[in-house]
Amino acid sequence: MGKQSIITLLTDFGWSDPYVAVMKGAIFTILPDAHLVDIGHDIPPGDVLGGAYALGQALPYFPPETVHCVVIDPTVGSQRRVLAARYAGQFVVFPDNGVITIVNQDQPLEQIVLVQDERYFLSPLVSTTFHGRDIIAPVAARIASGLPLSRLGPPPDTMELLELPGMELGADGVVSGKIVHVDRFGNLITNLPEAFLAGTFGSLSACQVTCAGRGVGPILRTYSSVPPGAPLALINSANLLEIAVNAGSATVDLGADVGDDVQVRRAEPGSQE
Amino acid sequence: MGKQSIITLLTDFGWSDPYVAVMKGAIFTILPDAHLVDIGHDIPPGDVLGGAYALGQALPYFPPETVHCVVIDPTVGSQRRVLAARYAGQFVVFPDNGVITIVNQDQPLEQIVLVQDERYFLSPLVSTTFHGRDIIAPVAARIASGLPLSRLGPPPDTMELLELPGMELGADGVVSGKIVHVDRFGNLITNLPEAFLAGTFGSLSACQVTCAGRGVGPILRTYSSVPPGAPLALINSANLLEIAVNAGSATVDLGADVGDDVQVRRAEPGSQE
Amino acid sequence: MGKQSIITLLTDFGWSDPYVAVMKGAIFTILPDAHLVDIGHDIPPGDVLGGAYALGQALPYFPPETVHCVVIDPTVGSQRRVLAARYAGQFVVFPDNGVITIVNQDQPLEQIVLVQDERYFLSPLVSTTFHGRDIIAPVAARIASGLPLSRLGPPPDTMELLELPGMELGADGVVSGKIVHVDRFGNLITNLPEAFLAGTFGSLSACQVTCAGRGVGPILRTYSSVPPGAPLALINSANLLEIAVNAGSATVDLGADVGDDVQVRRAEPGSQE
Repeated sequence: MGKQSIITLLTDFGWSDPYVAVMKGAIFTILPDAHLVDIGHDIPPGDVLGGAYALGQALPYFPPETVHCVVIDPTVGSQRRVLAARYAGQFVVFPDNGVITIVNQDQPLEQIVLVQDERYFLSPLVSTTFHGRDIIAPVAARIASGLPLSRLGPPPDTMELLELPGMELGADGVVSGKIVHVDRFGNLITNLPEAFLAGTFGSLSACQVTCAGRGVGPILRTYSSVPPGAPLALINSANLLEIAVNAGSATVDLGADVGDDVQVRRAEPGSQE
Repeated sequence: MGKQSIITLLTDFGWSDPYVAVMKGAIFTILPDAHLVDIGHDIPPGDVLGGAYALGQALPYFPPETVHCVVIDPTVGSQRRVLAARYAGQFVVFPDNGVITIVNQDQPLEQIVLVQDERYFLSPLVSTTFHGRDIIAPVAARIASGLPLSRLGPPPDTMELLELPGMELGADGVVSGKIVHVDRFGNLITNLPEAFLAGTFGSLSACQVTCAGRGVGPILRTYSSVPPGAPLALINSANLLEIAVNAGSATVDLGADVGDDVQVRRAEPGSQE
Repeated sequence: MGKQSIITLLTDFGWSDPYVAVMKGAIFTILPDAHLVDIGHDIPPGDVLGGAYALGQALPYFPPETVHCVVIDPTVGSQRRVLAARYAGQFVVFPDNGVITIVNQDQPLEQIVLVQDERYFLSPLVSTTFHGRDIIAPVAARIASGLPLSRLGPPPDTMELLELPGMELGADGVVSGKIVHVDRFGNLITNLPEAFLAGTFGSLSACQVTCAGRGVGPILRTYSSVPPGAPLALINSANLLEIAVNAGSATVDLGADVGDDVQVRRAEPGSQE
């Protein structure tokens, strides 16, 4: 098991403070041979939904037994609980604020417990502002060392889940969704899965996409399917509809951002656009 | 010892140049099984005091035998020396410019030497601009491999230490301190330790805090002790007085920054604010 | 070989998306004991030349058998190929877009192949937008596990290389070069190697440097060879001519940037400037 002790960290701590390093020190103190991976620390402060998407996107690519620490925790020190869960053979330790929403939607939940047993905390005296250091990191290191989840506490009665932006198929046959993330390249990532679009329209090549009120044409294969500077729609590496500009920034060039509407409709026969 | 070869890096190199990677390559060339941790690389260029606080905050959470490389080194290539020291069972290799000040104040110094023996450098020919690569990283890797500090050079006669912002207890019973750091969340971290305040006032619940001329009320338990958008004072995870705004940014909302004054006084009887 | 499984990542993905973490997960799934190092992820989107410089600067400091993953890949999904090469005992897996140019210029090429055999990909079904995850990361993990390059595919007929900014020795004895990078400190890094200048002028102390039309004086030893705020020229840790301002930013203070001209000429006898 020691050979597989991979622990990831996903926080909104940024890189300019030593908070992430402090969590890593707490992990190494318990498990000196851990392999630590940063999923990201630039989630905007308190952006629980943004963290939920990042975790949901990264987790499927990690090996079994990986332990993920999530500390996007704007209500630290309040009554919100800390949970530990097993999904698809991996573990997540996280504040019960909905940051698990995407993983919980996409992966099979195998076990979940309340993190309560103080013997596994950094020390019995826990701060009211940094549960990442005092609870989540040390508990993750214990789990990576082989501690069964059941030792941490009983299963919770409930779990917080976020309401996700909806997608819908209108009576007019138009699928509507939302931009849910803008990546570093300015690509606009939507909440519309390839499988849903293919199921609705039969063939993706039959679709026309509109983003923030502007037509961006059919769903193409890759960025360079259009000339540099031109917009396009494609299915991205997470199997979601994405609006991009080849060698450009769709968020800048199209003036679109998180929350804006995206529509997909069947191309009219003979339409070339 | 190989299993415990944890080496941290704290620099002002940022992430957009390959300088940090070059140091890591130099370490792996000597110690291929090292576990490397970034304490941070976003310290403002040449901000020795900022580096001193980051190191002081992170070091206590790392296990014994950890080796910390510090390269905030605006006077590289001048006569300033490189030192290696053992504090509280851990090691630090650093330029002698005061970046050790907080660790030196908080942790027991067990051994200190001048880093002089060129046999442990990357090569005898050392650059005048990148001692992180040429001296500090390879020496850290040697220490992590078990090299005794005494092999590096003799103890120094003196060591540079920074003058820290003062705190004082006035004749009027008011404790005065300074904001010394603003974190990513906009929290204002002061130089006033919980123990000093508790010793002065007996109980923290008896205190009223003023920051940059504005009253922020008593010392509360955690961020969500006040409504979103409201300011508060609390004791943070480093046991220092901190001024925050729940779900907001104290530096923005209060217009306060590093160097501004903070006062703590006994609450007047009957005062509710 | 397992003990030496060092894999680096150099991308233009930034830190705010989980793309880098996804690549790391893909590597760990194949090689759970890998030691992963970030060379950098803040290369401007699509800046192949910037990536080429970063890789060229970092690679020489890593130990033999290190595997470098490079994903600066603006034409992902097009016909551009993926290559794997062995230089100076290390390996690089990279898109065939010229990002190898500096390594190829500075290091001996020992072997190079087309990455074609889908058995070593994440899965036979490869995305059109994320070959870092689907091809480059898993292939790097296979190479680090001992897979011979020859198993990936045949040698390519050609390889893309970028045209580098030129340096020239004019009839008037003046050496002309270009600023090719500005680092975090605002230092202006040129394409003029120390060896070329020394060969041309005999002694570096005989030179005068002009940058963006402004004289910056002779080539000095280190930043603190001049007072704070003053500009200087020096030979940097990569053995290139660099223009800096002691305790300041040359790019800001001199108003110079990537692409600007730099000249070096022999000092006139008796000149003190």
